[in-house]
Amino acid sequence: MSNERLDQLRDELDQVNLEILNLINKRAELVTETAQAKENQGADKKYDPVRERDMLELIKKHNSGPFQDATIIHLFKEIFKAGLELQEKDYSKELLV
Amino acid sequence: MSNERLDQLRDELDQVNLEILNLINKRAELVTETAQAKENQGADKKYDPVRERDMLELIKKHNSGPFQDATIIHLFKEIFKAGLELQEKDYSKELLV
Repeated sequence: MSNERLDQLRDELDQVNLEILNLINKRAELVTETAQAKENQGADKKYDPVRERDMLELIKKHNSGPFQDATIIHLFKEIFKAGLELQEKDYSKELLV
Repeated sequence: MSNERLDQLRDELDQVNLEILNLINKRAELVTETAQAKENQGADKKYDPVRERDMLELIKKHNSGPFQDATIIHLFKEIFKAGLELQEKDYSKELLV
């Protein structure tokens, strides 16, 4: 395999990284909007273990590899945690106003 | 905001989760192909700290939030680590043949 092919693979990898970045940030916006919607309905509970379990089940169901389910679940739990932390920060900001 | 809107947001979130899943797996395939390409060129080093730093710099440069750079870097390091572990497992399998 040529150096050219290696460069091409690296470009593709960079492209996929940026697509993942955009989706992770888009996800954070949706999580923020969902939390606000729940709050407007009087539900102040940001963390919903049942909903988290359902999301993970759907993700596992669609996982066709090469990553094993355990790896995918680990990565998504990190993404979920970051989303929750973002809400906590927003809430702290509100308290300071 | 209505329950309908909340359901819609949850559907969108599930959709984004599955898009992230597909991209994370696509990334794993690219990492595997890149590792093979490097091996074919006589470079057996799977982990390349300079390349990892360059990837993270590019990601930071394109991060427009709402996640802060530190959160994004943490998530990508977890994704990178999973990719490396996948290569190690493949290598172990080769050794057993």
